Amino acid sequence: MAASKTMDWENISKGLKEMKFEVRGAIYDAAMKRSAAGKPVLFLNVGNPHALGQKPITFMRQVLSLVMAPSLMEDPRTASAFPSDAIARAKKYLAMMTGGVGAYSDSRGNGGVIEEIGQFLVRRDGIPPAPNTIFLTNGASEGVRMCLRALLTNSGNNRGVMTPIPQYPLYTASIQLYDGKLCGYYLDEASTWGMKMCELKRSIDEARSNGIEVVAMVFINPGNPTGQCLSLEDIQAIINFCIEEKLVLFADEVYQENLYTEKPFVSARKVLHDMGAPKNKQLELVSFHTTSKGAWGECGLRGGYFELMNVDPRTADELYKLASINLSPNAPGQVAMGVMTNPPVPGDESYPLYKREIDERVASLGRRAKMICDAFNSCEGITCQPTEGSMYSFPLLCLPKAAMDAADAAGVPVDVFYCLQLLDQTGISSTPGSAFSQVPGTFHLRVTILPPEEDIAKMMADFKTFHDSFMKQYRSPATPKL
Amino acid sequence: MAASKTMDWENISKGLKEMKFEVRGAIYDAAMKRSAAGKPVLFLNVGNPHALGQKPITFMRQVLSLVMAPSLMEDPRTASAFPSDAIARAKKYLAMMTGGVGAYSDSRGNGGVIEEIGQFLVRRDGIPPAPNTIFLTNGASEGVRMCLRALLTNSGNNRGVMTPIPQYPLYTASIQLYDGKLCGYYLDEASTWGMKMCELKRSIDEARSNGIEVVAMVFINPGNPTGQCLSLEDIQAIINFCIEEKLVLFADEVYQENLYTEKPFVSARKVLHDMGAPKNKQLELVSFHTTSKGAWGECGLRGGYFELMNVDPRTADELYKLASINLSPNAPGQVAMGVMTNPPVPGDESYPLYKREIDERVASLGRRAKMICDAFNSCEGITCQPTEGSMYSFPLLCLPKAAMDAADAAGVPVDVFYCLQLLDQTGISSTPGSAFSQVPGTFHLRVTILPPEEDIAKMMADFKTFHDSFMKQYRSPATPKL
Repeated sequence: MAASKTMDWENISKGLKEMKFEVRGAIYDAAMKRSAAGKPVLFLNVGNPHALGQKPITFMRQVLSLVMAPSLMEDPRTASAFPSDAIARAKKYLAMMTGGVGAYSDSRGNGGVIEEIGQFLVRRDGIPPAPNTIFLTNGASEGVRMCLRALLTNSGNNRGVMTPIPQYPLYTASIQLYDGKLCGYYLDEASTWGMKMCELKRSIDEARSNGIEVVAMVFINPGNPTGQCLSLEDIQAIINFCIEEKLVLFADEVYQENLYTEKPFVSARKVLHDMGAPKNKQLELVSFHTTSKGAWGECGLRGGYFELMNVDPRTADELYKLASINLSPNAPGQVAMGVMTNPPVPGDESYPLYKREIDERVASLGRRAKMICDAFNSCEGITCQPTEGSMYSFPLLCLPKAAMDAADAAGVPVDVFYCLQLLDQTGISSTPGSAFSQVPGTFHLRVTILPPEEDIAKMMADFKTFHDSFMKQYRSPATPKL
Repeated sequence: MAASKTMDWENISKGLKEMKFEVRGAIYDAAMKRSAAGKPVLFLNVGNPHALGQKPITFMRQVLSLVMAPSLMEDPRTASAFPSDAIARAKKYLAMMTGGVGAYSDSRGNGGVIEEIGQFLVRRDGIPPAPNTIFLTNGASEGVRMCLRALLTNSGNNRGVMTPIPQYPLYTASIQLYDGKLCGYYLDEASTWGMKMCELKRSIDEARSNGIEVVAMVFINPGNPTGQCLSLEDIQAIINFCIEEKLVLFADEVYQENLYTEKPFVSARKVLHDMGAPKNKQLELVSFHTTSKGAWGECGLRGGYFELMNVDPRTADELYKLASINLSPNAPGQVAMGVMTNPPVPGDESYPLYKREIDERVASLGRRAKMICDAFNSCEGITCQPTEGSMYSFPLLCLPKAAMDAADAAGVPVDVFYCLQLLDQTGISSTPGSAFSQVPGTFHLRVTILPPEEDIAKMMADFKTFHDSFMKQYRSPATPKL
C-alpha cells in the first residue's frame, strides 16, 4: 500500500470536501460522460445562453474587438467595417485604461468604467453611488464570495446567513466554505414563489434559538431557480425586516433585464432610497450585477460588479485589500460591464440594431418561458409556476411511490433518479431540485429556457414522451399535489 | 453616536483585517493620491508592462479580436487585414469553444486549450500532463489561492507553508487569509539570492519545534522580487528536501520566459521527471504559469493555469468543485493562454513578426535590468544583485542612522520612509522591502524594470539625485554592508 501523502483527499480541507455545488454535480458529470461518448446532450443545467446558440449583441463585440486590436481603427479597410459609435467607445476605453486591456487596472476596477456604472445607476434609480463603493469582479459570483468571506470568516464559525430555499447554490456553497451557518427561509411555491414575512421570522427565530448569530439575508430578484419577480411591497417588507433584525441585505439582481411579464424590476437600492430617512441610512445593502445574463449573456467574459450602500468605509477598504491579492478583475469583462450599463442610445449609429437585438432576445425568451411552462403543466403530476423573470423553469414533480422506492433502492433522491433517466433517454441535462434545496418531501427540476425558440416544441415533446413513459413505468397512487 | 452595524469594521473577519498586501499598500495609496492631484507618477510597484507602454504581441491580439467578432473573418474588407494563421487560429478556438468566448467553459477551462497547454509541456519538458490535472484560472494568483485553501483551511489553524523571504506577498497574504502558518526561509542575498539547504532545514525545524504541521514549500523561479534563476542542482536539492519532509512543492514559474543571462530555465516538473523512479512519483508538485509575464505581459486578460503532478485524483476533484462555484475562468484569458503556449512556428505567416517582437522585448528587458542594477550599484550605500530573470530590481539600502531615527519618529520602517520620500521627490512609486519580508535589520526596495528603455537613464539619474540628497540629509556613519 502506498504511503499517505500530504495532499491526499483524507488530508485536505474538510470544509471544501463537505461543500456541495450540484449545478455541476452528478447529472452534469453524467452528461459530460455521455457527451464524451459521442451522444447528443442538451445542456440545460446552467444559464449559459451563447452555448445554446444565442448570438452576442453586435455592438458589445465590435467594441471588444477594437480594444483588443486598436490598429483596426487605424487601417481604413477595417475601420470602415465598424460603426462610428463603436469606434468612439473603443477609443474612450483605451483613453481611460492606461495600457488598455493588457494592463492590470486598479483592484476595484477601472475608474472610468466605475463612472459608467454610476451613470447607469442614476438613470435606473435616480441615485448615484457613493465614492469607492463599486467593485468590478470576475462575474458576480466572485463579489458574493468576497463579501461573504468578510462577514463570515474567523468569527467562531457561528455567523448565519438567511438564504431562500430554493436558491442558486453559490450561496449555500460559499457559506459552507467560509464556515458560516445556513439559515434557510422557504419561498411559497403556491403564490408564485412569493416571500412570506412570517416565514422569514420563523427562520431567524429558529436560527437564533440554535445559538446562531444571524448577520445577513440574501434575496435573488428575479428568482433563480424560481423565476419570480418581487414587488415593491415585497422589497419594502424585506428591507424593514433586515433593518429591524440588523441584517446585511445581499440583493442578487443579476436577472434584472430578464423580465417576461408586466411586473417591472425595482432595485433594492431604489426602494431603500425612496423609504427616506432614517431608514435609507440604516440598511447595509450589497447589490450584485453581471454581464452574464440579460439579453447579453456574456458569461465567458466574467464581467460583474457589486455596490456597497451604508457600509463602513473601513470595511470597503478591507474588501479593496482582498481584491488586491488578485491584482485586478479581467479587463475585457470590465469593458463589457461598461458597454452593458451604457449601451447605444437613440441617435447613435448602432442604436437601431442594438435595440432590435435586445428586444428580440428578451421577447423570444418570454415566449420560450411560456411554452416550457405550459408544456410542463400539460404533464400528469407536474405543476409549474410561471417564469416571470430570469432564465429558468422549475416545475414541481409529483412522482409515483414506486419511483420513490426505486430511487431509495438506488440510494439517490428521487429527483436525481428522475433527472438521470431524463438525461439517459432524451439527452436533456437538467438540475435536480435537491441541488437548490426544496421543501422536504417535494421534488423539482430546473431547466434553462435557453434553447433556440424553434427547438422548444420538439424538446418539450421529447420531455413529455419521457415523462409519460416514466409515469407509466412507476404508476401508483400519486402523492397529493401542492 | 451611531449604533454599530453588522458590517462595521470592528465586526468583520479578523483574518482579513490582519492580512497584509503591501504591493498595493501605503506607497501605492500615496501614489494614487499624487496621481489624482495631477502630479506625474511612474508606477514601478507592480509588474504591469502594458501600463508602462509595452505593446502587446501582435498575433495574440489579432486572434483575440477575431474570436470577439468572428464576422471580421467573413467580411472581405476586414479578413484581408489579418494574417492567415491568425484567422486559422481564431477559427480553431471558435470550433473548440461551444458558444465562443461568450459562454462559460467547463470549470477547469476549455478542453482544447488544456490540450494546447499539454503540447507546450511536451515541447518544453518532454513530459505530457496526466488527464484532468490542468486547471485554467483567472491569472496564476487565483490558482495559488485555490490550492492553498485546499491545503490549509479547517485544519485546526496549524498547517504551515515554507515561503522564501523575500517573496511576492501573494503567499503570505493567502496563508494568513486561510489561517495557515507562515514558515519563512531566507534567501541568501550575498550569493545572488541563492537557496541554502541548511536554511531550509533551520526553517522547518524551527516551525516544527513550535508545533506547526509543515505541509508545503513555495519557490519562485525566476525570483520575485529577487530576480535570481535557480540551477538544476538547486531544484534537485529542493525536490529531495520536499520528498524527505513530505512537503507539497508549489513551483511558481510565472517568469520562465523572462531570462536575461546564460542560465536556462528548468521547470520543476522536468527535474522531477528526470530524477526517475521512485522519486518522480513521490513529490506532490503544483506548477503555476500565467499570460501576465514573459514578453506577452497580458496582465489585464487574467490568463493562467496550474498543473498537479502526483496529486490524489480525489483532491483534484475537490479543486474542480471549488472552481465550479465560479463557473469558469474568463474565456479571453483562456484563449490568451492557448496562444501564448502555442505561438506561431517557423513557416507560419505570423512567425517572423512574432519572433522579432518577442526577441526584442526580452533583449530590451535584459538591457534595462542591467542599466538599473548598474545605476543602483553606483549609489553610495546601495548594493544590488543582478536581475537574472523576472521583472524586478531589488537593491539593498544601507541607510544612515539618522534616517532610521527619523523613520522611527515617523512610526514607519525606514524603507517605507525612504520610498515615500522617493515618491514625493521623483514621482517613482516603488515597493519597500518590508512588503516582501527581509532579513531583520536589512532594508530594500523593489522596482520593476519595465519603463521604456529610452527612459531608464533619466529615471535612474532622477533616482540618484534623490538618493544623494537623501544620504546628504541624513548622513551619519553608515551601518555595515552585507
